[in-house]
Parts: sequence; C-alpha cells; structure tokens
Amino acid sequence: MTHPNHPKPDLSRGRPYLAIPGPSVMPDRVLAAMHRAAPNIYAGALPDMVAQMWPDLRAVAGTAHHVAAYIGNGHAVWEAANTNLFSRGDTALVLATGRFGLSWAESARALGVTVEVMDFGKSSPMDLIRVQERLAADKGHVIKAVLTTHVDTASSIRTDIPALRAAITAAGHPALLAVDCIASFGCDEYRMDDWGVDVTVAASQKGLMTPPGMGFVWFSEEARQRCATSDLRTPYWDWRARAQPTEFWQYWDGTAPTHHLFGLREALTMILHEEGLENVWARHEALARSVWAAFQAWGTGHPRIGLNVADPAHRSRAVTAARLGAPDATRLRDWTEHQAGVTLGIGLGMAAMDDPEWHGYLRVAHMGHVNAHMTLGALAVMEAGMVALDIPHGPGALDAAVRAMILG
Amino acid sequence: MTHPNHPKPDLSRGRPYLAIPGPSVMPDRVLAAMHRAAPNIYAGALPDMVAQMWPDLRAVAGTAHHVAAYIGNGHAVWEAANTNLFSRGDTALVLATGRFGLSWAESARALGVTVEVMDFGKSSPMDLIRVQERLAADKGHVIKAVLTTHVDTASSIRTDIPALRAAITAAGHPALLAVDCIASFGCDEYRMDDWGVDVTVAASQKGLMTPPGMGFVWFSEEARQRCATSDLRTPYWDWRARAQPTEFWQYWDGTAPTHHLFGLREALTMILHEEGLENVWARHEALARSVWAAFQAWGTGHPRIGLNVADPAHRSRAVTAARLGAPDATRLRDWTEHQAGVTLGIGLGMAAMDDPEWHGYLRVAHMGHVNAHMTLGALAVMEAGMVALDIPHGPGALDAAVRAMILG
Amino acid sequence: MTHPNHPKPDLSRGRPYLAIPGPSVMPDRVLAAMHRAAPNIYAGALPDMVAQMWPDLRAVAGTAHHVAAYIGNGHAVWEAANTNLFSRGDTALVLATGRFGLSWAESARALGVTVEVMDFGKSSPMDLIRVQERLAADKGHVIKAVLTTHVDTASSIRTDIPALRAAITAAGHPALLAVDCIASFGCDEYRMDDWGVDVTVAASQKGLMTPPGMGFVWFSEEARQRCATSDLRTPYWDWRARAQPTEFWQYWDGTAPTHHLFGLREALTMILHEEGLENVWARHEALARSVWAAFQAWGTGHPRIGLNVADPAHRSRAVTAARLGAPDATRLRDWTEHQAGVTLGIGLGMAAMDDPEWHGYLRVAHMGHVNAHMTLGALAVMEAGMVALDIPHGPGALDAAVRAMILG
Amino acid sequence: MTHPNHPKPDLSRGRPYLAIPGPSVMPDRVLAAMHRAAPNIYAGALPDMVAQMWPDLRAVAGTAHHVAAYIGNGHAVWEAANTNLFSRGDTALVLATGRFGLSWAESARALGVTVEVMDFGKSSPMDLIRVQERLAADKGHVIKAVLTTHVDTASSIRTDIPALRAAITAAGHPALLAVDCIASFGCDEYRMDDWGVDVTVAASQKGLMTPPGMGFVWFSEEARQRCATSDLRTPYWDWRARAQPTEFWQYWDGTAPTHHLFGLREALTMILHEEGLENVWARHEALARSVWAAFQAWGTGHPRIGLNVADPAHRSRAVTAARLGAPDATRLRDWTEHQAGVTLGIGLGMAAMDDPEWHGYLRVAHMGHVNAHMTLGALAVMEAGMVALDIPHGPGALDAAVRAMILG
Repeated sequence: MTHPNHPKPDLSRGRPYLAIPGPSVMPDRVLAAMHRAAPNIYAGALPDMVAQMWPDLRAVAGTAHHVAAYIGNGHAVWEAANTNLFSRGDTALVLATGRFGLSWAESARALGVTVEVMDFGKSSPMDLIRVQERLAADKGHVIKAVLTTHVDTASSIRTDIPALRAAITAAGHPALLAVDCIASFGCDEYRMDDWGVDVTVAASQKGLMTPPGMGFVWFSEEARQRCATSDLRTPYWDWRARAQPTEFWQYWDGTAPTHHLFGLREALTMILHEEGLENVWARHEALARSVWAAFQAWGTGHPRIGLNVADPAHRSRAVTAARLGAPDATRLRDWTEHQAGVTLGIGLGMAAMDDPEWHGYLRVAHMGHVNAHMTLGALAVMEAGMVALDIPHGPGALDAAVRAMILG
Repeated sequence: MTHPNHPKPDLSRGRPYLAIPGPSVMPDRVLAAMHRAAPNIYAGALPDMVAQMWPDLRAVAGTAHHVAAYIGNGHAVWEAANTNLFSRGDTALVLATGRFGLSWAESARALGVTVEVMDFGKSSPMDLIRVQERLAADKGHVIKAVLTTHVDTASSIRTDIPALRAAITAAGHPALLAVDCIASFGCDEYRMDDWGVDVTVAASQKGLMTPPGMGFVWFSEEARQRCATSDLRTPYWDWRARAQPTEFWQYWDGTAPTHHLFGLREALTMILHEEGLENVWARHEALARSVWAAFQAWGTGHPRIGLNVADPAHRSRAVTAARLGAPDATRLRDWTEHQAGVTLGIGLGMAAMDDPEWHGYLRVAHMGHVNAHMTLGALAVMEAGMVALDIPHGPGALDAAVRAMILG
Repeated sequence: MTHPNHPKPDLSRGRPYLAIPGPSVMPDRVLAAMHRAAPNIYAGALPDMVAQMWPDLRAVAGTAHHVAAYIGNGHAVWEAANTNLFSRGDTALVLATGRFGLSWAESARALGVTVEVMDFGKSSPMDLIRVQERLAADKGHVIKAVLTTHVDTASSIRTDIPALRAAITAAGHPALLAVDCIASFGCDEYRMDDWGVDVTVAASQKGLMTPPGMGFVWFSEEARQRCATSDLRTPYWDWRARAQPTEFWQYWDGTAPTHHLFGLREALTMILHEEGLENVWARHEALARSVWAAFQAWGTGHPRIGLNVADPAHRSRAVTAARLGAPDATRLRDWTEHQAGVTLGIGLGMAAMDDPEWHGYLRVAHMGHVNAHMTLGALAVMEAGMVALDIPHGPGALDAAVRAMILG
Repeated sequence: MTHPNHPKPDLSRGRPYLAIPGPSVMPDRVLAAMHRAAPNIYAGALPDMVAQMWPDLRAVAGTAHHVAAYIGNGHAVWEAANTNLFSRGDTALVLATGRFGLSWAESARALGVTVEVMDFGKSSPMDLIRVQERLAADKGHVIKAVLTTHVDTASSIRTDIPALRAAITAAGHPALLAVDCIASFGCDEYRMDDWGVDVTVAASQKGLMTPPGMGFVWFSEEARQRCATSDLRTPYWDWRARAQPTEFWQYWDGTAPTHHLFGLREALTMILHEEGLENVWARHEALARSVWAAFQAWGTGHPRIGLNVADPAHRSRAVTAARLGAPDATRLRDWTEHQAGVTLGIGLGMAAMDDPEWHGYLRVAHMGHVNAHMTLGALAVMEAGMVALDIPHGPGALDAAVRAMILG
C-alpha cells in the first residue's frame, strides 16, 4: 500500500496464457520452425523431411498401419473418415458423450449415412453393457462401424477404448471401430493397434502443438480395404494415395502445407524423440490431477462448484470441464483474461448459449505444451479471481493442487 | 584473379530466391504476422479481424457476391466447386490448355460427374469458335457448367475469360462458368462479376503471398442456388454456411486456420490497401514483359530456346513456361539453384518425367511478392548459368529484359 | 495414480518462465519487432522512428532534460556516467546497499576517481542521517557527486531517493546526485526531475523488456555542464553529441543498434502509450506484494526462510532477495528449473560462491513483462518444489500471495 | 502493352535488397536464432555456447592470440583499441585512405593521443615508400603504433597489409600495427598472424552478418602487454579480462548481449563450418569483379561514370565506391530504392553534404550474405534506372558483369 494514489493495476500485462481446449499453446520452437521462406516442393529439404515424418506420425498414434494427412481441421478428418468408410445408406452407430460426438453423427448423416446415436448425456461415461447389447442385437451386421470420441472436447469425458473394443468383440460384431482423438491426441494415453482401433482421427492444434490447419487419419488394413467400395469416397478425401504416395504431391493431393510441416516436424521431435510419448502422457496426468484437486477443494461446501465428470477414470487428461454456477463461470473467465492474463475455455454444449445457465460452465485446458508453472499459475489466477469477485468457494485449493500434482 | 588458389566459389550463398510457380515468396510481414501465439477462437481479435476480411476477399476477386474459405489447397477447392455445382451424372465441359485443366477434369470425373474435355494442347489458347459450336450443339443443355483455367500453371497459357463468356452467351447456353484462378489470382487482371464468371477458385500460396493451406471459392447467386440441389454436396465442402455464417466456427466448418489468417490479413492489406490491385496487375505485367524479352533474345538464332506461348495476349503475367532443349533446362535449373541462389520451376506436363525430353522445359515464376530486383536478378543468373554451362544462346537478353520492363 | 507404470513426468515441458533479475521476459511483440531485415541507417523509417523515441525515453525517466543512449550494458553506462562526471582525482561518495553499488564504486576507482564508500551492508537501507553528516563534514565540497543505487539488484534494497536528495540539501552540499536505476527502471516508481536527481543510468534488459545491448544515461543541465571539464571524458562516452546530435549517427557515435531500436520502440509504446507508466508501477507493486506474502507465510515457524529486506518500504518492486537456508535455495532453484519450468535467480553477494552458505540465497524477479499468472505460477511452483524436496516451510503461502496481490 | 490504362507500376514491391555497406543483409537463420526467449545468463546453454565461440572468433581473424568482445559498434572498438594501446601523450601514426581512417585518428586525438596523419586522399592506395621513410625517420621510436584501415568503408580502398607490415619491418621500427577491418572482415582475405598484425578491430554488422551491436578486438601478446601500462585504459574497455575471463560475466564486463550471441553463433557456423572462410573470400571476389565490370562498361565513352579506385589490386571485395556525376548518383539511388527495391549506399567523404557534387557519388555493397542473384539483380536494376532516368552510359554492362563473375 505504498502508492495509495496509484490506479488499480492491470495484472494481465505479461505473457498471456491461453488455456482453451485448442488451439493450444504453440512452443516457440514450433513457431520459429514455421517462420521461414517458402521451400521448393519438388525436391530438397521438404520432401526428404516428410518421408521421415510418416513413421513418427504412426508412432504417435501407436499403429504400424496407415496414416493419411489432410490440410484441414477436425471437421475435415471426420469427413475423411466418413467418406472412406461408408457408402450411402450404410449404417453407423455413434456413441456420444458430449457435443462433439453428436456433431460427428450429424456430419455422417448429412453425407447420407444412416446414423444411430446412443447418447449417454454430457456428464457420464458410456454404458458399455448397453453398447454390447445393441451390437449383439444387430444380428444382420447392418452397422458398418462404431464411431466415438476418445475424449469429447466439450464434456471432457474420456472413453475407455479397450473396454469398448472388448464390448464389440463380446457382441461378436464385425463393425469397425473409429475413434475421434482430436482432444486427447498426444495428451491421454492411446495405443491404436493394441486397443484394436480401426480408424483414428486427430488434428494438429491440440496435443500436437502446431497451429490449426492439418488433420490426420490413421487406419487399419481392414479399414483401407473398406475404402475401395465406399461410394462416398471423393478424390480429395481418398486416403489411399495419401498414405502410400508414389509422387510427393500425393501426400496432400496437391500443394503441401509447407510451413505447417516444418512446425509439425519440430513438435513430433519434442514429443517422440526428446520427452518421450509415455512421459508426455504422465505429465498430462499430473497436471490434470492438480486441476481436479483444485476444483474438489473449491467445491467443498459449495456444491455449485464442481467437476463435470465424477469419476477420475473417465476424465480427460487434456481438458477439464467444470461448473461454477451462472453467471460466475463467465464472470471468472472475464476476470482471469482481462485482469490476470489467463484465457479459460467456455463451457460448450452444457446449456444453450441464450440460456442464462450457459454462464455457469467453463473448461480448463491442460493440453500440449503445458508445464507445472502454467497450470498452477492458471489455478492460482482462478483463485485470485474468485477472491476479487467474491465468488464463494472452499479453501485450500492451491495447496491441494500442488500436492496432487507432486504427490499423486 | 588476385586469389588464384582460391576454391571455386559457391555463388548461391546469400538469400535464396524461389522462382517456382507456387508457393511463391512470402513477404516478411506475412511470415511475421503468422509468428504469434495461438489466439482465442471464440472472441477477441481473431473473429473481429475475420469479419473485416471477407469484403477484402470479395474485392480481390472483383465480385460483390459470395466467398467461401477452406482450409485446403488447390485440389481442395476444385472438389469444393465440383461438389457444390454437380449431382452425380451431371455433365461438365472442361476446356483444357494444360495439365491442371486436365486434372480438374479428372477430379470431377472421379466424383461421378460426366466430363467432356476439349483439350487444346499444351501451347495454344483455346479455340473459342469450337467452344461456341460445341455449346450451341448442346440443344438440351445437358452441360451444367463449363470449367476452365484462367492460367494453367503448367503451360502458362492465359485464357481470355471475357471472350469465353461471350462465346457461351453467343451459343445461347445457360451453363455456369467456373474458372480456376489458382495460378493467376492477384497477378493477372481478373474481374469476376464484370466478366460474367459464376465460380472462381484460388488458393493462398501464389499471388496471395501466404503459405499453402487455404483455398477460396467465390460464387454467384445462381451458383449458390445450384448448390441446394447438388447431391455431391458434403458437409465440409458445402459453401453456404461458410459464406454466410451465423456463428464464427462456420466460416471454416470448425477450428479456423488461426495463423494463416493473420498472414492473409497482412497480404490483403498489402495488395488492396497499400499497392492497389490494379498496380499489382501492372507490376506483374512489367515483370512478365522482361522475362519474355529475355527468352526472345536467348532464342534468336537458337530455336531450341523459346517461350511456350507464342502470342503475348495468351501468356500469363504470373508464370512463364519455356523450353531450352533437353537436357539444358535441367542443367540450367541445377546450376541456378546450387551455384547462384535461384530455384526455377520444373516443366510440368510438357513431357513425361521418364522421357529425356522432360529435361528440356522449365518455368520462371514472377508471381506475388516479386520486384524488379528479383526478376532481373533471376534472368541475369540464367544468363550466367548459360555462360557457365556453355549453353548456346542469343545475345543481349539482359538489356532487352531491362528495356522491356522499363519502356514497355 | 491411474498409470502406475508411467515414468515420473518432467513437469517443466512447456513454456519456460525466466524469473531472474535480468534479462527479463521479452514480450512477443518486442522480439517480433526485432525480427526484421536490416534497415537503411541514413534515411527512412529508422531515423524517423528514433527522433520520436527520445521524448519517450525522457518521459519514462521523468525528466525534461537530457538523455544519451549507448550500445552497451549496465557496466557501460556506469563508465559513461563516471567519465562524463569526473576528472582524475575527483572525489565520489558511493552509498552502497549491495554488491552492485560496490561494483560501481570499483568502476569509478579504476578510472582514477577517489572513491569513498559508505557501505550499509546487504540487508539494510542506508542511514540517511549518517549520509547527511558526512556531507555536512565535507566543508570544502571535495565530493563532486554522490553515487547510489535506486535498487541494488543483488540485495533488492530500494533506496528512498527523495529522502536522500533531502539529506544532501539539508547538508547544504552541492554534490550532484547520480542514481543507478538498472534494476528498478520501469518497475519501481521513479521521478528524476521531481526527486532532484542529476544523473540516472539504466539499461534495456529489465523493466524496458528489450534484450541486453543498450544502456541509457539521463542527465540534468548541471551535469551536462560538468562534462565540459571532465578530463575522463572520451569520444565514445561523451554524452553531449549523443543527447543533441546534429547528424543521425551521433545518437550512437557510429552505427545504430538497428534491431534493438525496433524492439525498444515497441516496449516504450507498451509502457507509456498502452499500459501507462503509473499503471506499470502499480502492477509491479501488486506482484511484489504477493511474493512478499508468500515468503512471510513460508517463514512463519521456519526462520531459515525469509525476505532479505525487513521493511516493505525499502523493498524493490522489481526483484525480491530471500534466504531459504543452505543448501535448500540451490536445491529449490534446481527443482523449479528442471522439474517445473521456472528459473529463479541465484543469490548474489550474500555469501562467497565457494562458501556453502551461498546455497542459502535466491532471488525472485518480478520485473517487466510479468503478470499475475506468471508470478503466482512461480510461487506455486516454489511451493511444489518445497513439497517435492521436503523443505520444511510454513503453510498457506499461496492463499496469502493471492490475497496480498488482490486485496493489497 | 495489354493494359494501356494501368497506372505506372511500382516495381519495388517485393523483397527489398539493402546494398549499403553496413548493416548488411542478415541471413534468415541469424534473425531466427535471435528470435527467442531471454536465456539464463548464469548457467546453461548460453555460457556453454560462448565458450565454444571464442575459438571460432579467433579463427575468422586468422589469429591464435587474443580476442575481446564488446557490446558496441565500430566507434566503440576504435576506442577500445586506443585506450588499451596508448597512454596520454603517446604518438600514433595514422595512415588514411578515406574518411574512416581520418575518423579513427580523430577518435585517438580526442583521447589525448598525439596523432600524426598521413592522408593519401580518397582514391589512391597509400604510398608505402613514404610510410617506410616516415618510420625510418622516427629514430627515437616515438611512434607507438601505426593505425590504418584494411578497407576504408567510404573510399573502398583496400590496403595491402602484408606490404605495410614489410615496410614497417624494413624501417626497423617497433611500432605495433593496428588494423580496422570493419568493412572488410569476413569478405576480403585477412590473415592476422601471418600478416604480422598486432591489433584487429571489427564489428558484427557487415561480413559477420549479425545486427549492429557487437564489436571485437583481436590482439597479439605484445599488444596485450602494452595494455598493462596504458593509462587511457578504462574498466569497460580493458581487454584483458574479456579475453581471459575467470567468470562468465567478464566476457562482456556485465550482462552479455544474449540475443546477438545466438545470431553470431549462427553466422560463424555458416562462415567457418559450412561455406568455409576461403570460399567466403572467393565468393566476394567473384561478386566484386561483376560490379567492377559493370562500371567499366557504363563508363566506356562516359567518363563521368567510373570506379573510385583505378587498380583492382587496391579495391575492396566488400564494397565498391563509384561516381556517376552529380546529380545522377542521387537520382539513380532514389530510383532503385523506390522503383525497383534496391537501396544503394550514399557516397561518403567524397564531397561535403551541402556540395552539389555530393550527389555524384554512390557505393554498392557486396558484403556478407550476398549471392549471384542479389548482386547481378542490383546491377540490372541500376541499368534499368539509367534507362528510366535517361542517364547516358556505355552499353553491355550486364553481359560484362555476368562474364566477369563467371569467367573471372
């Protein structure tokens, strides 16, 4: 209090921290790698580099099979998967645990696929017994593929993919399993081949720490063969030449996304060759624990505040959806962004945007290039915001977060 | 000769100049604008900026109608145009003057469109009388749209679009006119509405001076209505919500290409608000004249050397295809790249890659962020290469290039 | 604990935070402004920009008088001040509250100045009564100037400059007052003219948020006149032409530090024209309070832990020196850097480097481009490190830090 | 002439080329290396990197002896050399072949050194017979050191340093030889130890391809010992601890120029470990030949146009001073910068700035990161400017330049 006449300071002046669930924070090295002159696309460093990246792209998904890359975003790879897998009139079973699962279903339906949705709500994991029963009931194997999210970015529910595959197997059903890993990729543990996944889709801007603009589809040999007869297949989405090109331009069906590729190369090096993929997963696990512990403390005695997903086993390690009660989630987000330098994610799909309840939800991302300093700082800033805004909350959240992160 | 024992110097050590027909040289300002932290995609600077860019995107194409943007490359916008315009079984008439026109035809055919190609070869403009006759013969108006290139990137032939529209009109045919401006956009004069074009496609990496990764489709009101009944339309390619979004994410059907957008903003400012679009065209005209004059001089008395397009009226102002005779084109390209810092474009589509004649062709790009220094320097380096490699050529090319550029 | 077999994660993988007392964190905008082609130094944007920067440089120091800029660091501007102020054999009175005050004394002595040091130790503010007495005793006014630090970067002691000036005045002594603001500039409140300071020295790499490489000397009209007779003056250090150049090159006595200037321009705009200088001071005040509160809590019941400066009135708002007891300061610094992404400053001048006690001190910087997220995150990481390393400490530090920052 | 109504184009829109004799063009890699977060200056990557740079700094000067680095420009290293070499009243013999030699003399004189200048004018190499006679006449060895420029940046005269050393030896004089290599360093062949040089000064912004802000002084063992008794020596300029530091901060007497060091590291790697120093010299030789050939052609029949230095043996390979006759040099510089993207250097020291003759001189730099494309392009643009401005000139300059570069 030595400067009583000073204006109230703006405590956001410094490096802003973007804690929304994508795009995530880009490493300086990735941005620096993209800041370069345009390369020759016919010979030289770029083609050489790309040839060496495809094995890394397979490794990061845990597959020995195929990967096709697209200039596009998450919606683009949904369409890529849909068009390679289905013919018009085919049936897809979509297992939804949040808004993005439902959107993928819409995307398939608009293409002419017959889509059956099992909607498990916004806060609960899927009921695998019901899934198994549904598949077992499909005696004629009308269902060609099961589509689901590993993590739904909106709800932050994480699906137990090995258990889902076990349910499909137990039902004796031949449906292919396609998994949207857009939110979880490079954050939550994922082992495509070990887990029996046929199709995985992801994009560049979350755990891959590269600006939006690239998407990827990994696919099994069985899925590759499906493509041959899919009448929704288009020249641009066709994943076959992209995965096994005979000329360089085929990797991307035309001009390559030159600058993104240099960024992605750097990101893959950081993940696979420097930190190590299992260490990346373990880091996200520890960071997630600290976020969960903080919310648990804040909510103690204040049931308006709480995590969206009750059971830690079903929570994403990349993003955490939570509620604070309307309008405090919006008030807090505004404060942390404009007064303290932390941009939190809006709640998505928990209430309609014109519903006052919409202002009761938010999400904290902890995906990609995120460390103890960034995550603990974000939690401390949320605590500061609650103090500044007189939002009632339980005590001890920061100590709990620190201990959960360090002691597990 | 004061250092007789010095090794032969590598005269490429300095800033390399990439003179291939895309990606083109990116302005420092564009690269700098892309070197930034990931932005919030729900509120703030990015959505504000995008709203202000759409009018500029329309202006640069010369249309008051619609524009849809895609994360994608040139092949992506071909597919976007095809799927919005056609239903399976519809007929398209493709007018080809080089490899890229033929590829667009392939792209449509693979989607299930019935494609009729009028192929005018690799070195000649299209014969508009034949086009008019063909359309007049289509009494039943089976042909739904005419597809062509403004400039074919491979042949550097420029099509007289107003004359083509006049031919369609003279034939009394209602076909829509769709034009691929990928190579010419922001280089060669183009006036979509004035010229009666229904669909224009272009991408970011040539005249728009932004890294590969974004494509654009401009379309007339009539083309927009066509989309409603096109059964090839997919959720991702559907141009309607992209052109008239009610929520920000619809501009891109999902996550926006955040970093590219900051780069594109800078490029559009340079083109429209600083230099001025007509000045941009005039600059490309002057630079092209200098390249043409050099080849004319080199070819004098040496008929192996020459421009691909005889008539200046049908030459692109963005790229120039030429022949040097095999294997001298390849020898010269190797020398300029490795000894002098200039990467020239390969010849494309003039001969098969395994045909020795393939090594007789090259292309010089003069598209986008290119000035007198860059273009004259490239020509001087080509002269130097011919001297170093003992490639016989006519004299006075550089003086001719200088005079053609300055005096017209 | 859901992944029991995961390796212990490296929680530093993310954006590192450098919390040493200089160089400080550079804003992205400053680094981006420096990433540019070399400019013409004779005409154009650079000379225009520099002419407009000098008023801003005066404003940030609170003076209407003179400023000279140097390519150099803090030691350079010490020498610049010394050589402009003194002739060989002149006497300087140096008031030291830490290692840097003593170093400035050494710097003057090595030039041939007779230096008298009043050393107030490493943890206490100066005793102004003793200063006044000393000056009053100098009846012959042998002392030409009083040299001191506003903040000594090593001890983080802040000197009450207005009170010091009052003491000089009370002693009726004509000595000039020269103040080293290297650590405090742009962080702690400072008003050169209002406070009666004759010479101020600072450098680019702390509160000015620009990479090391530029130093500045502000000087009063009386100090300017002193220069005319100073026989230590050299052509490079002479501040006269630099402050009032007739040709552009004289600003820097030769080639300008082109890239740094573009960075500094951005930093001055942020400080003066966007945030506002008083707001910058208030922000640092709030951040400092949070750091102090944390140490107070950690030290409660654990007297090994504590702030170096007992009285908040004498603490810097830019940097905080503290002790943890050897070797825990070094252990903690190692942990925060390698396990959590925060690099803290070493203790400087509190013990010899080969004394085991050296490992008992550290410094936390909160200078320049620093916000609530960065500072609270650093404190949370320190708490995490104490937990991980079993360093005994008082509870509630993070809550105390949050409340001190927000509630004052 | 297909667009008769187009405005006259601005042919400078593209990447500008700065062809002034410093700062030179910075490689993208150097700028990228500087675009990074501030590093720790006490431990880690920076101290490790610096330790490995000092051998490279010695290698690039051709010495096995000492190097001291300074945050500063060319004037700073003049002062560093002066203060380490001289005591007040010592005598220096300055051999001047242009404005910068004269300025170094001024710099020494202002420090209290007795300076004797032998001024050989602005267009002629020094007369070594006169130098030898002058030294031989100094029987008492009053002259402590001979100061001269390897290349005077203003006149572009290159001094034959081995011959100068031979003249000193022949005179039997013990004076130390100090050489300003600011303009020539990393461009013109230079071998400090082989040539018997005692002190070499250079800076970062020319052949070292790094932004202005760092200077270097290399010195022999004899020069090092001289320093011990030099009473002009100051703490900041003292080269001893900088060359043989016991703590990291002593390399720079305080905070290191962190960002510049990362840039310099990249530049040294390019010069020494990628291209090779002799290849760098050979490249500059070839580029210089092309510039000379162009001026020779332009001047044929037009004696107003010509090179400043008649004998190629005495011309710099880094910069070429020339005359065009007033006001055509200024007219041409304006045209090339604003119409074609090439900024040429002003004439310096050939006429007073208020003399109309001043507008008759210019300089073309070809130093540092410069290749065939950049230099030939600059010459072509000069030809274009002469055509556009109707400046009479001889024909065939570009062909001559190409042949001189390639054929020698």
